[in-house]
Amino acid sequence: MVKESTKNKILEHAGKMIRMKGFNNTGIQEILDSAGVPKGSFYFYFKSKEDLGLALIDHFEQSVGQLGESLLVNASGSPLERLRGYFEAMRLFFEQDGWKGGCPIGNLTQEMGPLNEAFRTKLRAVFRLMQSGIRDCLEQAKAANELDSHVDVDETSEFILDSWEGAIVRMKAEGNSAPLLLFQKIVFEKLLRR
Amino acid sequence: MVKESTKNKILEHAGKMIRMKGFNNTGIQEILDSAGVPKGSFYFYFKSKEDLGLALIDHFEQSVGQLGESLLVNASGSPLERLRGYFEAMRLFFEQDGWKGGCPIGNLTQEMGPLNEAFRTKLRAVFRLMQSGIRDCLEQAKAANELDSHVDVDETSEFILDSWEGAIVRMKAEGNSAPLLLFQKIVFEKLLRR
Repeated sequence: MVKESTKNKILEHAGKMIRMKGFNNTGIQEILDSAGVPKGSFYFYFKSKEDLGLALIDHFEQSVGQLGESLLVNASGSPLERLRGYFEAMRLFFEQDGWKGGCPIGNLTQEMGPLNEAFRTKLRAVFRLMQSGIRDCLEQAKAANELDSHVDVDETSEFILDSWEGAIVRMKAEGNSAPLLLFQKIVFEKLLRR
Repeated sequence: MVKESTKNKILEHAGKMIRMKGFNNTGIQEILDSAGVPKGSFYFYFKSKEDLGLALIDHFEQSVGQLGESLLVNASGSPLERLRGYFEAMRLFFEQDGWKGGCPIGNLTQEMGPLNEAFRTKLRAVFRLMQSGIRDCLEQAKAANELDSHVDVDETSEFILDSWEGAIVRMKAEGNSAPLLLFQKIVFEKLLRR
């Protein structure tokens, strides 16, 4: 097993804390305390807290890419079965922390999108990566005759992503999975139904 | 013209600043500076910043109620025309600040839902108020034969609200109205179409 690098350790701990508490509300010192890393090391890897935030978005982007690769591309099942499995895996992930953490990309967009243009540009790219994974799956569903050939896969994948992000917001208000389950029901039984 | 009360003035300025900058990232002093109110007055009306935040949610809830009353209940047009007008009015409102502010209830849920149970409970109630306004409109659309009689108005109104909140999140990432316009297109031309 390869030893986790100090930089990755900082990013892992920062990611978890910022996802729960917000970017502005999380201090560098508490991240380092949690990671067990001395302050000097932080400034070896990151110029500033903003620099950490931007690296964190890259880190989340990698996870998004890996999740899509594993569940939307390489998983077994038909294209729409894989798409269902993708959302179901995320739902189970959100359940693990009592529906408190939500989507790190949605959270950071809400908080930092209006405040920092560099954050916003990077976050937009991650949303587009998520959307393109959904889009490709819908395209395959069309080719497999699982989805009506008239469906506009670009618009539909964007709308699905937005509906998912909003279901996550309301999940945090309700404190349960109901909005995520309703999303699955309406998207798969109504919106994508042949 | 009735003089704006000091309490309301604080709430108005707090609402605008917190909507743009977040709750934890906005200090009491900058709110008071913006409102032109001395610090002593703040503690006459609010026990703490948390107390201000909770009063602010009540304040937003009033606005949500008034907006629903004016656009979903009292506006002219068929039920679905009123529902379209409601979302279009909010879209134009979001445009005014360059798509930066977003939905104050969605923002506070993302930020404070996981951190403060009193906030979460109040925010959930405001979402339910929004949903019930949409629901009633869908019920009227059914009665007016504008909407298929098989549509489940409870589930559909929840899903519409979630899709709207998510479109607002991605609006903040994109920095334009495209996700809101796509929401309108898919909801009214596909999801609610007879």
